[in-house]
Amino acid sequence: MSDYARRLNLIDLNDYPVSWWNGLLELAHEILSAPQDYAKACDGCIMGTLFYEPSTRTQMSFQTAMLRLGGTIIGFDNPATSSVAKGENLKDTTKIVSGYADIMVMRHPVEGSAKAAALTAECPIINAGDGGHLHPTQTLTDLLTLKEEKGSLENLTIGFCGDLKNGRTVHSLIKAMSCYKGSRFVLISTPDLGLPAYMKDMLAADGLSYKEVSRLEDAIGELDVLYMTRIQQERFASEEEYLAQKGAYILDKEKMKLAKPDMIVLHPLPRVDEIAIEVDDDPRAMYFRQARYGMFVRMALILTVLHKNGTPPALIRGREHKSVKCSNPRCITHREQYLPHFFEGSGDILTCEYCDQRTLI
Amino acid sequence: MSDYARRLNLIDLNDYPVSWWNGLLELAHEILSAPQDYAKACDGCIMGTLFYEPSTRTQMSFQTAMLRLGGTIIGFDNPATSSVAKGENLKDTTKIVSGYADIMVMRHPVEGSAKAAALTAECPIINAGDGGHLHPTQTLTDLLTLKEEKGSLENLTIGFCGDLKNGRTVHSLIKAMSCYKGSRFVLISTPDLGLPAYMKDMLAADGLSYKEVSRLEDAIGELDVLYMTRIQQERFASEEEYLAQKGAYILDKEKMKLAKPDMIVLHPLPRVDEIAIEVDDDPRAMYFRQARYGMFVRMALILTVLHKNGTPPALIRGREHKSVKCSNPRCITHREQYLPHFFEGSGDILTCEYCDQRTLI
Amino acid sequence: MSDYARRLNLIDLNDYPVSWWNGLLELAHEILSAPQDYAKACDGCIMGTLFYEPSTRTQMSFQTAMLRLGGTIIGFDNPATSSVAKGENLKDTTKIVSGYADIMVMRHPVEGSAKAAALTAECPIINAGDGGHLHPTQTLTDLLTLKEEKGSLENLTIGFCGDLKNGRTVHSLIKAMSCYKGSRFVLISTPDLGLPAYMKDMLAADGLSYKEVSRLEDAIGELDVLYMTRIQQERFASEEEYLAQKGAYILDKEKMKLAKPDMIVLHPLPRVDEIAIEVDDDPRAMYFRQARYGMFVRMALILTVLHKNGTPPALIRGREHKSVKCSNPRCITHREQYLPHFFEGSGDILTCEYCDQRTLI
Repeated sequence: MSDYARRLNLIDLNDYPVSWWNGLLELAHEILSAPQDYAKACDGCIMGTLFYEPSTRTQMSFQTAMLRLGGTIIGFDNPATSSVAKGENLKDTTKIVSGYADIMVMRHPVEGSAKAAALTAECPIINAGDGGHLHPTQTLTDLLTLKEEKGSLENLTIGFCGDLKNGRTVHSLIKAMSCYKGSRFVLISTPDLGLPAYMKDMLAADGLSYKEVSRLEDAIGELDVLYMTRIQQERFASEEEYLAQKGAYILDKEKMKLAKPDMIVLHPLPRVDEIAIEVDDDPRAMYFRQARYGMFVRMALILTVLHKNGTPPALIRGREHKSVKCSNPRCITHREQYLPHFFEGSGDILTCEYCDQRTLI
Repeated sequence: MSDYARRLNLIDLNDYPVSWWNGLLELAHEILSAPQDYAKACDGCIMGTLFYEPSTRTQMSFQTAMLRLGGTIIGFDNPATSSVAKGENLKDTTKIVSGYADIMVMRHPVEGSAKAAALTAECPIINAGDGGHLHPTQTLTDLLTLKEEKGSLENLTIGFCGDLKNGRTVHSLIKAMSCYKGSRFVLISTPDLGLPAYMKDMLAADGLSYKEVSRLEDAIGELDVLYMTRIQQERFASEEEYLAQKGAYILDKEKMKLAKPDMIVLHPLPRVDEIAIEVDDDPRAMYFRQARYGMFVRMALILTVLHKNGTPPALIRGREHKSVKCSNPRCITHREQYLPHFFEGSGDILTCEYCDQRTLI
Repeated sequence: MSDYARRLNLIDLNDYPVSWWNGLLELAHEILSAPQDYAKACDGCIMGTLFYEPSTRTQMSFQTAMLRLGGTIIGFDNPATSSVAKGENLKDTTKIVSGYADIMVMRHPVEGSAKAAALTAECPIINAGDGGHLHPTQTLTDLLTLKEEKGSLENLTIGFCGDLKNGRTVHSLIKAMSCYKGSRFVLISTPDLGLPAYMKDMLAADGLSYKEVSRLEDAIGELDVLYMTRIQQERFASEEEYLAQKGAYILDKEKMKLAKPDMIVLHPLPRVDEIAIEVDDDPRAMYFRQARYGMFVRMALILTVLHKNGTPPALIRGREHKSVKCSNPRCITHREQYLPHFFEGSGDILTCEYCDQRTLI
């Protein structure tokens, strides 16, 4: 195991306090106000982009961020042709690449892989998506967009529309916005695709206001922010139901007429048809600008990590339980056998430190 | 639609006057005479290379050009593994990438795609080939080679040998050279693979001299320039005919003996066997140096576009005809449904602004 | 043929005298002692990486080396999607890319391809592996690791463990270490996978000390260096034999207890299971640091080649024998028909200058 305690990784946004997030958003604001002041800030630094599954948009966003700081890039993006990604365990690959690079960005289809890599890497790791688990720079992108476009992260009424059951992006942003005063959530979905119970329990426990509605038209008028997500046909009980209901979750010019003049529309992209193209010309459509904010917040993050601003959070908070196996079959510990079985908690329920799955023992 | 009127795109060479071409060739000459003077000219700038079909040679030429100006590169080249190229419409991809990059180079298998992208992009677009339609930087490469190697673009006798019916490169260069005084064209091909009638009509209308011959040996002696192209077996009526005729269109040492001592041989590359490898050592063989000229002319182009030298041409000269569909099934308007149907002209015949197909209405 | 005599290529380490190797290792030492002094040493230079087969690790090592010298990179890595690698002969591709780049690094599955490319390229070529033939920068990596970690390349007892019959890496390092005073070799393998007779003859002819043992445990105690390599199941006569014997060639904590406290373990990577992961935490495990030394020795090499330090060795030492064909079916001369048949030697036996195969005529 490397001396990981000294590194400023970003595995999970919740490893850091809200004050750290706010510092990052302020730095991003400074950068977008005067990008030329940062054009050489990472001169001589190399970023390794290890994309174990293709995600061209995220990869280009990170690459641009590093280039606009004066740094350079190595990496791979195509597991099919990369000899590294094929025959080798995660530890060896990250050991080797972190011997070349100053910072690594990793995208991997298996949950908990970013933390696993951070355990043995020789440089800081940024999690660019580990399966369905976490994607912290998407949430930072969303926060920067809200901060820049609404002026403050407080007292916002945010509607989430689409598949709220399965959306990693939605869950992360709700959790993040729960930390800001006066957030109100409007959950716009079918009964089957609503926010999971544990998320609603969390909101209730925090004393946060939320309501659920089934039609976008009924809620759009009261929103400061509309966060659109894709709603996939295969999530519906039948094709008939899909055809009958999908219109209620598609944003078009007609529905935009019902919205406040200063409401903004966000979308993590790519979109399919949940936002009609005619909406693009509406000045409230913010999703393309949101992608550009993602570049600036990644610049702030790379700068913070490389300049070692802040106290590294503990990577492992619990301890090793050799005989316990994580109950999540999609957890990296099932694929990389050498990984120590780190869990947090005590008593009957242990939480896997890699994938956050709770296992009853 | 973005504010495209302010951008200096290069979609079609004919969008610009000949004086602009000449300015570009002069700048390319300055760059190749003193490349070190331009080594930081685009410092801090990012080029996005969007290659929707692989074209390694063209992509490397553009990348080298940008790097030799001190800029950097993002992009993709492999539609099979690029998540951007797969699930997303052209508008969204170009919107996002043009939010990251300062200039975009696009190669796409569908005709008219470069202009479609330019309509909504947030930065200038260079067309690096849109299907069988246009490839303006190849023509600029050819012009720079002629200018540098022959000293002038006037009073040249140029032979075109091979498949003159289907060659985009040949048609573009003939059109371009028609604008220079004293050009004479010798068309060397089989009757079936000769220059299309509309091209010959254009030459005749411009009062330009051309003649057609069927054997390279009969014409090579009078040429200042020999432009070789591939002639594919499948274009011949039968294998027998191919075997009987192909020798007449293959350049070898014997035929080079018949040529002037200062004739030069060009080829857009890749070659298959239409130029024997024994010709490579002849000082008149210019095709490898031609590839290198391509790098310099692309440097000049990138510099011109990024430094905004020149008046942007009108991207759309006609108007929208909502009910008319372009009659070319390979036109981008058939694939990207949201595109406005822009046509030039009036009366019965409209010309599609994307792919230049004439449609009778 | 280009004016190849003036170029400082690295095709085969044995083209250079030992003093040149030592100079390279000293420069690598200077670079790793003060990398910031070299951060702009290749500013404005472009490296072309032509990987005709994927080798992500080697490619990233070269790319990092060039970036850490302030240079930039073009190239391809995926023969399936590269249009260059598909339809074009090696000569045309290297002609074109060497017109763009200042230095080329080539990996190719066919033996002798690096020398073939060097014959016509317009810039220096570094061989990053030509089939089973040569991989000189791996050997340089091994030498630098030994030099840095043991202090000297003289008087070392080196054990080679695993498949010593087929390992290109092993053969090259033995040949290289034969040039240093006091080298002793311990060959640890099965009888079937032992060092080839011609290699043992070479050692004997040079008066060098070697011994053969069949179990790692019997030899590990006397070693200064243990060089581990993969031993593939399919090399054994049967699965039973594999299962019975493989334990003798796997390095684990138990066997490490038998080794000297200052022995070091090397491995060219990737490993499969011939080194247990538990060994990684042993301070004598040097294989990840070895990969990092590879980056530094490649920096030294690129710098030496680009700054033209040293006398270029003769690329062709023999002469053309038009009517003789190399007897090695994996030789590049069988694939690229235009290549002159260069052989060294006289009388009955000629040695192919591309692949070093001896042909009886």
